This record gives sequence, structure tokens and C-alpha cells, in this order.
Amino acid sequence: MKKILVVGSVGIDDIETPSGKVEGVPGGSAVYFSLAASMFSAVNIVGVAGSDFPRDIIDFMQTRGIDTKGLEIVDGQKTFRWSGRYHDDMDNRDTLLTELNVLETFKPKLPEEYKNSEILFLANIKPDLQLEVLDMLNRPELVISDTMNFWIYNDPSKVAQVIRKSDVFIINDSELLLMTGENNFLAAADRILEECSLLKALIVKLGKFGIYATDGKEEFFLPAFPLRQVADPTGAGDSFAGGFAGYLAKSGDFTFQNMKTACVYGSITASYSVNDFSIEGLKDFDVEDIHEEFEQFKKLTSF
Amino acid sequence: MKKILVVGSVGIDDIETPSGKVEGVPGGSAVYFSLAASMFSAVNIVGVAGSDFPRDIIDFMQTRGIDTKGLEIVDGQKTFRWSGRYHDDMDNRDTLLTELNVLETFKPKLPEEYKNSEILFLANIKPDLQLEVLDMLNRPELVISDTMNFWIYNDPSKVAQVIRKSDVFIINDSELLLMTGENNFLAAADRILEECSLLKALIVKLGKFGIYATDGKEEFFLPAFPLRQVADPTGAGDSFAGGFAGYLAKSGDFTFQNMKTACVYGSITASYSVNDFSIEGLKDFDVEDIHEEFEQFKKLTSF
Repeated sequence: MKKILVVGSVGIDDIETPSGKVEGVPGGSAVYFSLAASMFSAVNIVGVAGSDFPRDIIDFMQTRGIDTKGLEIVDGQKTFRWSGRYHDDMDNRDTLLTELNVLETFKPKLPEEYKNSEILFLANIKPDLQLEVLDMLNRPELVISDTMNFWIYNDPSKVAQVIRKSDVFIINDSELLLMTGENNFLAAADRILEECSLLKALIVKLGKFGIYATDGKEEFFLPAFPLRQVADPTGAGDSFAGGFAGYLAKSGDFTFQNMKTACVYGSITASYSVNDFSIEGLKDFDVEDIHEEFEQFKKLTSF
Repeated sequence: MKKILVVGSVGIDDIETPSGKVEGVPGGSAVYFSLAASMFSAVNIVGVAGSDFPRDIIDFMQTRGIDTKGLEIVDGQKTFRWSGRYHDDMDNRDTLLTELNVLETFKPKLPEEYKNSEILFLANIKPDLQLEVLDMLNRPELVISDTMNFWIYNDPSKVAQVIRKSDVFIINDSELLLMTGENNFLAAADRILEECSLLKALIVKLGKFGIYATDGKEEFFLPAFPLRQVADPTGAGDSFAGGFAGYLAKSGDFTFQNMKTACVYGSITASYSVNDFSIEGLKDFDVEDIHEEFEQFKKLTSF
């Protein structure tokens, strides 16, 4: 069992989807990720919240084996806030509001015992912060990173630095096209792998169409878990990354072959996440169900 | 070995894609389909062309075991003409011109020996014509049908009749959403299967994301063959249907399990088709290559 460290955002969200509307609910890339990863493995979290972030969520995270010593709470200040509205197809969304609040001046601090985490997940957050955390650690065995279109637009060279220092980079297809200027996501993936020699795998999230993964030699496709209804796609990517990294931590096997299996677990945790609003779908899980869904994936894809 | 009958369009196309431009090239749903299917099986074609349709293409079809007795040539008249321009993403296209010409007054005529074809493919053409051909035949063992957004807009009740009389219906995801008013293609597929009791399988083409197939109990996902460059997506769906039906005809096994395998062969023939403009990609093929690509699909999807 390897230990995972995640640095990312901790947020309070207002979310509107065709399935409903919630306000002031917990969110943030590091929160979704760590809850998903904790189904498989222990997780250390580094991030920042204001005093308005619900204490019971932090307590709940601890009951799931998430170490929150690295989660700084800034008294009298407000948590990062995001508000978004999804379109009918659930694929596109409009950001209605972003308030950085405590994130604006955040300087990550690493508890001493976090420094030997074997797996580091650089969740979506300002790329400078991702690089800072990476520099504060002994080089982990596996560095997995993520980003979003906002940083690709506004700080592409820093994003490129993050990818160059990563073993696994996770990105969605539209962001990958944006980043490379290609029209074909496979050609775009080839480009990234050529330019980033350290990368052992590039994982492209295709939304409702699943996952494409490649190490530059082998290629792998996995459909998304077939859901008739999605409540809230927020955090789907982070929940995927959580299940993916959690399974890698549990198995301790970082080969591309094992990453394929990890993609299946990531897709299962992502399906839990989007089944309900905010982090609700990640709260309850049953190991038996996870096994069953794994078998369902086998049947879905075999011929 | 079962025999296939296809009724569909025979056309002359002008095509512009980000990869290039061709004018006055052979096309049409029945032409793409029969060339793809002929890699596996004998095909009888019913359709109509004008005297401007290149004779050498008909000769070539015959060398591939395609019986063209049912392909009517109307002297002094012009073949159906379509002109389209694809967007950069190759997923969307603008139709620049459609001239029905000989298709306008076409009445399908069936050579007597076609009437016992075991597999009927109702390729994209006016749904009235699809129904007419179906009525002219002893009920084939397997009726596979296709349509396009134009008919879904303009004659939805006739399209519904065609589906209700089919064993397998092939449609792309955006057309399926258009037809059902659903936002989720899985929920839309459920709806169609509930409403059409005869359907043994519904096959949803997801473009570059592959294929989803279901019989209402089992579900199956298959990625598209990973292509870095596409020359011309025209006829991809018909080429898929050709490989699919051709393999079913060759194997004589119409179970859903075998349809999954047929989807793999359909995806291979579709990848040949889009590799070059017009029907060029379907002209040469090597049985060895097809086997190799089948194995590649196994590797692409297994974990």
C-alpha cells in the first residue's frame, strides 16, 4: 500500500444542472479526489479553506482515512467559491462566479510526514502551486497531474512545466485540443507524449464516451459506466483521478497494464460521483458493488 | 453463407474536408455499403443511377461479387448528386447541394432471385422506398435499417415504421437524440427498444468515439479504430453497416453476441473507408490486415 498526497482546491459550490440545483455545497478538486481515492487507500491532503467550510465534512473525510493535517483553515476568511450551470447535454457548463478568497494568497505547507508520499496528485489548481508542492517533496515514485482550460489559456507555459515533471497527465479531450492546436485527440496525445519524455501515460477523459489512455506504444479505450441519468457532473474528473490513483496506491503496481485496471476503478468512482450532487455520491460505497461494477465493465467491453 | 440485399442511394459526390477536395466522385449509401460488405459476403444491390455514373465503378463492384442486376441505369438522366463540406473537427458537415435527379421518380424493381435474400439492409434513402422494398420480399431472416436526420425531420412517422419492421436499427447518437427528444443517448436507446418490439439490437454510432450496441438486456461498447488522420468521413456509417452485415452473412449467426464481433468488423471497414476519399479506401483490402486489426481491437479494449 502506497501513500497518496493530493494538493488541490477545497471549495464551496453553487451548482445548477438539468436534474436540480444546490447551493453552498462542498466541492473542490482535492475534496472530490480524496474521497474517491479513500475507497482504496490512505490519502494526505494539502489545501486551504476558510472558516465557512463545514467542519462536519472535514470530520467525515477523517473517518475515511483522509489525513487533513495539511488542510489549512484560515480563520475569518472565506473558502474558494465556484458557481456553475450545466447545459441540457451535461457536457457543457457556464461558470457563473469564481471567488478565489483564501486561495488567492495560499502558500502550501507540508506536514513533515507527508514528504515521503509515494504518489502525488497535483489536482486542478494554479500551476505555480502545483510546481511549489512538487519542489517541497522528495521526488515521489509517481506524479499524476491535472489542470483545466482556465490555466491552459492563462498560463500555458507553467502548465507545460507541470506536465514535463509528471509521470501521468490526465486531461479532457477539449482541453487537449486547446493545448496542442490539433483537431484529432489521438494526434494531440502523440504530441504531448513526444514533448514530455518523463510521461509514462497520458489519460484523456472523453466525458460520457469514456477514457483513452496511452503510453506512446500501447493504446487503451474504456467506455464510461453507462448512466441513464446524471445528477451533477461536477468533480467527475477528480473522482476519476481519485479511483485511478487510489487503486494504483493499493496495488503498488505502476505499469501501464495496471493503469488500465486503475482506469476502470476510476470510471466506477466517477460514476458514483455524478450520481448525486456535490460529494454525496462519494459518501457511501460498498466494496461488493465496486467488484460488481468491475465485472460489468468486463462484459460491456468484451467480444 | 447468407445472401445480402441492399437498397439505398447511388450517388455522385463533391466533397471537401480539411484533408482535401474531390469532385464528381462515386458515392451513395448502397455503394459504400456493398463495397464494405463484399469483403465478407456476396451482395445484391437495388438502386438507380443516371447514365453519368461511371461504368468502371459498376464493373469494379461486379469483380467484388456484387450483383448489380438490380442497379437500374436511366439513360439520359443524371445520378443523385450530393455536395458537402466538413468542418475542422470532421464531426460536422454542411450540405452544399442535393440534387435528387433519378432518385426523384425511382421505383425499386427486384430481380426474382433477389427475393430470397436472407439479410436485407435498408440503407439511407427515402423511407417510403425502404418500406416498398421490404414489402416486395419474403420476410428476410434479418432486416437491418439506417436513416438520416433529413428523414427524421421530414417524415418521422415513416422512419418509425421502418424501425418497427426491422431487427437491427443503426443510427448515430445525434440523430437518436433528435428522434426521441432525449438528452442521454442510453435513455434514448432504451426508449426505441421499448417502442419497437421486433428490434433485436439497436446500434448507435458515436463517430470517433465508436459504437454502442444493446439488445435491451446486454450492452456493448466498442471504440473506433484509432486514426490520427481522417481523409473523408463520407460513407463511414454505410461502410460500418457493410462490414457488420457482411460478417453476419458470412457467419450466419445473428445472436447479439455475434453482433458484437460484427461491430468490430464494421469498425474496421469504416476505418478503411475514411482513410481515403470517396470509395477509394474500400477498393483494396487484405484479409490478413483485417485479422490483424481485429486483434488490435482486442488489445485496445482489454484490461
